[in-house]
Amino acid sequence: MRPSLPRRVTAEFFGTAFLVVAVVGSGIMGERLAGGNAALALLANTIATGAALVALILTFGPISGAHVNPAVTLADAMEGGLAWSEAAYYACAQVIGGGCGAAAANLMFSLRVVSLSHRTRSGPAQLFSEFVATFGLLSVIWGCSRLRSGAVAFAVGAYITAAYWFTESTSFANPAVTIARSLSDTFSGIRPADVPGFVLAQIAGAVAATYLFRWLVPRPASHSKDVVLPHRERE
Amino acid sequence: MRPSLPRRVTAEFFGTAFLVVAVVGSGIMGERLAGGNAALALLANTIATGAALVALILTFGPISGAHVNPAVTLADAMEGGLAWSEAAYYACAQVIGGGCGAAAANLMFSLRVVSLSHRTRSGPAQLFSEFVATFGLLSVIWGCSRLRSGAVAFAVGAYITAAYWFTESTSFANPAVTIARSLSDTFSGIRPADVPGFVLAQIAGAVAATYLFRWLVPRPASHSKDVVLPHRERE
Amino acid sequence: MRPSLPRRVTAEFFGTAFLVVAVVGSGIMGERLAGGNAALALLANTIATGAALVALILTFGPISGAHVNPAVTLADAMEGGLAWSEAAYYACAQVIGGGCGAAAANLMFSLRVVSLSHRTRSGPAQLFSEFVATFGLLSVIWGCSRLRSGAVAFAVGAYITAAYWFTESTSFANPAVTIARSLSDTFSGIRPADVPGFVLAQIAGAVAATYLFRWLVPRPASHSKDVVLPHRERE
Amino acid sequence: MRPSLPRRVTAEFFGTAFLVVAVVGSGIMGERLAGGNAALALLANTIATGAALVALILTFGPISGAHVNPAVTLADAMEGGLAWSEAAYYACAQVIGGGCGAAAANLMFSLRVVSLSHRTRSGPAQLFSEFVATFGLLSVIWGCSRLRSGAVAFAVGAYITAAYWFTESTSFANPAVTIARSLSDTFSGIRPADVPGFVLAQIAGAVAATYLFRWLVPRPASHSKDVVLPHRERE
Repeated sequence: MRPSLPRRVTAEFFGTAFLVVAVVGSGIMGERLAGGNAALALLANTIATGAALVALILTFGPISGAHVNPAVTLADAMEGGLAWSEAAYYACAQVIGGGCGAAAANLMFSLRVVSLSHRTRSGPAQLFSEFVATFGLLSVIWGCSRLRSGAVAFAVGAYITAAYWFTESTSFANPAVTIARSLSDTFSGIRPADVPGFVLAQIAGAVAATYLFRWLVPRPASHSKDVVLPHRERE
Repeated sequence: MRPSLPRRVTAEFFGTAFLVVAVVGSGIMGERLAGGNAALALLANTIATGAALVALILTFGPISGAHVNPAVTLADAMEGGLAWSEAAYYACAQVIGGGCGAAAANLMFSLRVVSLSHRTRSGPAQLFSEFVATFGLLSVIWGCSRLRSGAVAFAVGAYITAAYWFTESTSFANPAVTIARSLSDTFSGIRPADVPGFVLAQIAGAVAATYLFRWLVPRPASHSKDVVLPHRERE
Repeated sequence: MRPSLPRRVTAEFFGTAFLVVAVVGSGIMGERLAGGNAALALLANTIATGAALVALILTFGPISGAHVNPAVTLADAMEGGLAWSEAAYYACAQVIGGGCGAAAANLMFSLRVVSLSHRTRSGPAQLFSEFVATFGLLSVIWGCSRLRSGAVAFAVGAYITAAYWFTESTSFANPAVTIARSLSDTFSGIRPADVPGFVLAQIAGAVAATYLFRWLVPRPASHSKDVVLPHRERE
Repeated sequence: MRPSLPRRVTAEFFGTAFLVVAVVGSGIMGERLAGGNAALALLANTIATGAALVALILTFGPISGAHVNPAVTLADAMEGGLAWSEAAYYACAQVIGGGCGAAAANLMFSLRVVSLSHRTRSGPAQLFSEFVATFGLLSVIWGCSRLRSGAVAFAVGAYITAAYWFTESTSFANPAVTIARSLSDTFSGIRPADVPGFVLAQIAGAVAATYLFRWLVPRPASHSKDVVLPHRERE
């Protein structure tokens, strides 16, 4: 019943590429048009990102689960949703897809294919932000996918829409997107040197939420009829 | 079938904490970036709060009902949805969760963990606003949860999105969030001295709507298949 | 099965009152905060109105159909959805509810209970706008309620969100709301002298769309399980 | 079961007309009110367009599939969803409907019925943008309509909301809308000379996505109960 691995990996590639296109592209457009008002630029960036997540999870969810995020893939592998070997393929496709997405966004706005970002994003407040943001993201995914999986796309889109505004880091909450954002020296960028800290904080948040929901909702909905993150029972 | 009380109370804690993170955090971010335009700051605050409610109710609804609001818990106890002893646990978890959420938001923006708000919110127009806002919130919850409970998350998110703009008080409509907002001297704050009036007006609105809907929709949908606020028949 | 007429009329009263609270209240708030930028004020007004419609139709739809609009009630009576005598009660409740909503909005912002609007809204472009806006609204309602009634709340909310921006009149599209808006001399107001023209254009648009959809979708979904506008088969 | 061709063609006419009314009208309104801030004008344009798509696909989807886009009709004909002769009728209705929509929008804002746009939209970045935008649109449609067709309206509305901001061209992604936009010398316009390049890039994107999803999701959901783009099995 589950699509073949090449199909799923391809879905992760395109899903992550389009997510990064939305994040980076709308950042460029927002900054260009906002006349110096950062709230307006971030509002455009937020709406585009949240809406893209809704569309992409609805589109690719039934094929690959639409993780489009190595932290989600890690958590899903922890819970037995996919094998660790498959998780490695997923993560590679996500990172490569993210990079291609950043390049495509740059090209669509007549910029150089790749330009390393100079935007500093560091310090304890930002790392705590990424921990909280990814903890929340995985909480939303586990809460919804176990008990009302048809709503995951809307829940995740809504969550990230909120999270852009409630964290100083604007909630990257996604290692593949974090790496990809370092490849565009524009509004949504991040200095390559700040990437590892963000990724570690994200993984910590994802793992913490996964342990919490193991206790909160013990039995995954293995028989749900509309499953974005399909699961076998954990032995 | 219903999750254990510790699980439900934990869900209320995290749900309320994240709601307050969204309310307070997006207020800080909005004000910082909006360049003095209060409409833009409130727009960011509104979108983040409404979206967070959608995500949180979808996530925690199947576990605890996702009240994240002592006024909702009170109304639900009035209607027999949960025992009064359970309601007390819920309310404590909501108030403590809200406080932790305010602290987390302050920390994510490099502010002191707690700072009492100096923002005055008082007078008959604001109290009437809170009465109307909470009357409307409970109307939405009772109307939807009895007859189309799968839509509660979207209805509540949409309602609060609207209510932020149609009341002079910006519709707190939630005693736990009201208390928590007094702990951050930022955009969304409220002076501790103004909290009791807000809470009383909110409770009055919640009780009034509950009586109205007892008459409007006499039989709660005890057999609904996707129930955010599950109920036993009232004797 | 259908709730009693007093319950349905009460639902129309509160539904229309809250709709007008959202329209008028968010107009006042938007104008106060927007610092003279009319686009920002209208954006706030739009988001609040669209979101309120989603919440109100989900809440009151299962009770009374959530017409909250005499033009919808007229069209529904034309199609046999409710008796003409019931339609008269509906329309009265909507007009009175709208007036109470305007008064409540004024009070929540510390304004006088009622103040007649001085805002001119007239001329052929505005009347044509109201015709098109109401034609579109009834098209959305008939298209959705006959074939996928569970989505009506979202479709109507989305439609009005769009229509605020694609008409010079900002799409009142509702005789009860038009009358109520004349009772608040604020952002969303309309001069009493301009009300009759708006109402006639709205009725013409509603009737035209009803005739079009009689041909486009001949058989109403009388057996739909989640019906916002329930219908008996037309003989 | 499928409505007659005249009914479906009429639905495509009105659907495309209202889509263009929303695109062109909200562009005029946004620019008028935004006080020179292009981000605000585009934000209004975006929200109106995305919301209109949700409403129109929910309304006309069950009648004609709500293609409202010759690129979608082309892709659907490639996959056997409708006959090529029907596709020709669809495309004519869409182009004529789009033109009528542009005229109606002009009239609603007291402008001349038709005025050719002088807005230049050309160059490789814009053409690449249109390719990517339409590739993404058809990906969303194929991914959703084959596996969860009830969500197509929301997915398409969300996708275009995002795409307005992640492309330099603001994602027309629709040949009928592109032609119609050349008929209004306003915010959302395009010079007639730039139309053919846009249309070719859009068709290329639509065809590429259709081939990708033939491989990604081989079996269309011919038995889905809520099908926006109904399909017979491909032999």
